[in-house]
Amino acid sequence: MAEKITKREIDYSKWYLDIIKVAELAEHSDVKGCMVIKPYGFAIWEKIKDQLDKMFKETGHQNAYFPIFVPKSLFEAEEKNAEGFAKECAVVTHHRLMNDPENPGKLMVDPNAKLEEELVVRPTSEAIIWSTYKKWIQSYRDLPILINQWANVVRWEMRTRLFLRTAEFLWQEGHTAHATKAEAIAETEQMNGIYAKFAEEFMAMPVFQGLKTESERFAGADETYCIEAMMQDGKALQAGTSHFLGQNFAKAFDVKFADKEGKQDYVWATSWGVSTRLMGALIMTHSDDLGLVLPPALAPIHVAIVPIYKGDDQLEEIKSKLGPIISELRSNGVAVKFDDDDNKRPGWKFAEYEAKGVPVRLAIGPRDLENGKIEIARRDTQEKNVIDLSDCVKEVSRLLEEIQTNLYQKALDFREKNIQMIDSYEEFKSKIENGGFFLAHWDGTAETEELVKKETKATIRCIPFEGDKEEGVCMVTGKPSKQRVIFAKAY
Amino acid sequence: MAEKITKREIDYSKWYLDIIKVAELAEHSDVKGCMVIKPYGFAIWEKIKDQLDKMFKETGHQNAYFPIFVPKSLFEAEEKNAEGFAKECAVVTHHRLMNDPENPGKLMVDPNAKLEEELVVRPTSEAIIWSTYKKWIQSYRDLPILINQWANVVRWEMRTRLFLRTAEFLWQEGHTAHATKAEAIAETEQMNGIYAKFAEEFMAMPVFQGLKTESERFAGADETYCIEAMMQDGKALQAGTSHFLGQNFAKAFDVKFADKEGKQDYVWATSWGVSTRLMGALIMTHSDDLGLVLPPALAPIHVAIVPIYKGDDQLEEIKSKLGPIISELRSNGVAVKFDDDDNKRPGWKFAEYEAKGVPVRLAIGPRDLENGKIEIARRDTQEKNVIDLSDCVKEVSRLLEEIQTNLYQKALDFREKNIQMIDSYEEFKSKIENGGFFLAHWDGTAETEELVKKETKATIRCIPFEGDKEEGVCMVTGKPSKQRVIFAKAY
Repeated sequence: MAEKITKREIDYSKWYLDIIKVAELAEHSDVKGCMVIKPYGFAIWEKIKDQLDKMFKETGHQNAYFPIFVPKSLFEAEEKNAEGFAKECAVVTHHRLMNDPENPGKLMVDPNAKLEEELVVRPTSEAIIWSTYKKWIQSYRDLPILINQWANVVRWEMRTRLFLRTAEFLWQEGHTAHATKAEAIAETEQMNGIYAKFAEEFMAMPVFQGLKTESERFAGADETYCIEAMMQDGKALQAGTSHFLGQNFAKAFDVKFADKEGKQDYVWATSWGVSTRLMGALIMTHSDDLGLVLPPALAPIHVAIVPIYKGDDQLEEIKSKLGPIISELRSNGVAVKFDDDDNKRPGWKFAEYEAKGVPVRLAIGPRDLENGKIEIARRDTQEKNVIDLSDCVKEVSRLLEEIQTNLYQKALDFREKNIQMIDSYEEFKSKIENGGFFLAHWDGTAETEELVKKETKATIRCIPFEGDKEEGVCMVTGKPSKQRVIFAKAY
Repeated sequence: MAEKITKREIDYSKWYLDIIKVAELAEHSDVKGCMVIKPYGFAIWEKIKDQLDKMFKETGHQNAYFPIFVPKSLFEAEEKNAEGFAKECAVVTHHRLMNDPENPGKLMVDPNAKLEEELVVRPTSEAIIWSTYKKWIQSYRDLPILINQWANVVRWEMRTRLFLRTAEFLWQEGHTAHATKAEAIAETEQMNGIYAKFAEEFMAMPVFQGLKTESERFAGADETYCIEAMMQDGKALQAGTSHFLGQNFAKAFDVKFADKEGKQDYVWATSWGVSTRLMGALIMTHSDDLGLVLPPALAPIHVAIVPIYKGDDQLEEIKSKLGPIISELRSNGVAVKFDDDDNKRPGWKFAEYEAKGVPVRLAIGPRDLENGKIEIARRDTQEKNVIDLSDCVKEVSRLLEEIQTNLYQKALDFREKNIQMIDSYEEFKSKIENGGFFLAHWDGTAETEELVKKETKATIRCIPFEGDKEEGVCMVTGKPSKQRVIFAKAY
């Protein structure tokens, strides 16, 4: 199996697609730009979803569901938002097909079934949700509204790439409504913080939290918070965003509330989302030339056990010996796959679990059994050890924790190695070619940002929260700068 | 709150909508025919979803995700299926909006962004899935494929009704592929059985399992299995269907496999689904004129606790006394809501939890506290008792079990009372007006079925599996009949 994977240093993009293929995560569909998420890929997404859902609920959010369609008149109500998404909309114009009189057996759009008003397939749901919130909000007693939805959205992308950029993708979108600006900003920050926590603790992926510049903001937001991660090619990946929407949508949809004194004011809003794009981030943060590497916290299978045997007697012996161990592992919350598929050789299975990024693999044959031993292999470092069967449960638990920590540390070390302060634009231009993050001073203007983008394809990923806030001068124009920002090429 | 609910005997349809409104389950959206599922309604749907998902996984199914769009050429491939859904399709024809030059600030469909091929928003996913399975299946080793997806689908319904019939709805659709006809039929039966088990054990809703007649079959199926439930107005509700698709989709998409001997054959298929329609079934099976009634197995809140107090001291005393009880309940898996919202009076809270169908309500005031007592009220029978605080945990658990059982028994008794054998078509015509299920002989022809439907609006809900299979003569034509079938008016 391993031979099908292009090496990262040969062709990073092809490597990425090869990993998705050999690990059976997803594939292109017969619909331009849309993907099929295969069972193993979807199982990882379910782990991501379940954990995030838990974190949202723990912070007081509830799930709900809003329509997939947005009538054009609602879609265009918040002008900046509409402008931002109008160019990439799937538009429903008819509600019926009919038999094509000129092509028996074929169908055509029924011209008599044209909709009075076109429907946009949601690229994001602020419009449809705020037209609903208008009915729900009269007074401060109706606030805050803390709602999330798990949904599919469609943005008509021309150049697509599995998980990273697809016409249809799955995501969650939180949409909250508040009585005060301060509360809405606190919510925006809280949710960006939850994304960072999730990325670091579960995906084992270090991220920078920060603010987007005006030109990189969500269309319709007053401020966009984000988490940015570094991939193994040194490029940045925006892994989640949380938007302070000010009163923009409340004004567009005329959503006012009466405060305790009866004074009317527009409602304050936030929205925040992460998507199946996280799958791309996960793949590119940890995987290697042998296949996918998964942090245990998000692995659908923690431990694959491959018995090596001849004949049913030996298999039965292995089974009876491992039975109690497997039960104990499972009752500890470890997802175990015991693979006694007769049609595949052990070597084939080893390669398969390696390709699929299963964190720990156990192998046991008749001689091991005799000696009370079992082979334990970890996916991240490829290390193998033979241990006492009686230590197996303890060692698996220890290893799963260690792998989780190690993956995070490795990714953090990589990021440290590939981030640098830079003050010369000339130096920047020569270095940015090879990827990496650059902490540089910037004069705060969209013009300079645009120039850098045009000349180097690098963008300002964020104005980071962490690190020193020393002032300086813009590396491009020499004008004053309040703090360094992160420049990088990005996905 | 209760006064807002129309009584069932006055106007059953209005009662249904009132329940949805007072229990805050869902509402109409600004998109014709599409609903907004509100947080409390969605929480019930999540309970339904989680339980079914568990049952699917326990029977070897995995989740995956396929595109929302079906290109017209794939949609029309299986002719019967296409014919069945063509009349109610949302069709995407364009992929961009542009500024309307004649209406500043408004958008219009960009005529230059017409798609080469129209995309149908999936009304069901057989077509897109079988065009994918074609790539996955070469040999018997690739079978069976046991996949489910949780998704939204769109069917352009003209007359919609919250949960029961909406243009967009949420559902799960299982799509399996098998090497033999027998295996596919066994799968179809297994999944219908799982639906029946779920309906009875979790929804507390008795159902008949049976086969649909040819004219009521899913478009593209060789056989449709179903579960049919009786609502409180005596009408039937089809709550789930499981289809044996034969080789129809394999032939339409040319999906063949090589068996162990290398012989090529078309793959056998099934598909099966339940939807947010189950919410409608749940509401109409148990609720009463005071509001929603929920079986504990699907209730987001099992127990609501209303403290009755004056001042913070009394509240603190109640809290400190109930703290350990609440902890113990929660650790037993009981979902507890302790409602000390200061803005609402106890009476208001009682009415609210009644309207929302919370199975058990506890109320405690200073005098109860003094006496070591607490009031416990069950939603289903409206019974109230004052019990010892020390018995509270035990009594809540007992009551939750009893309510689950009682609701099922009550629904079963109702069904027994409203089902009858009938042999005279004249009698049938006079009785069917008042609802109920009628076990009658039928000659097996679509003509007779159609005639009955035209004259009485009743349809054959299913050819039931249970009950005697005695032969007889058709109540309409007097021709021979193999067994009685169930006639009823239906949602």
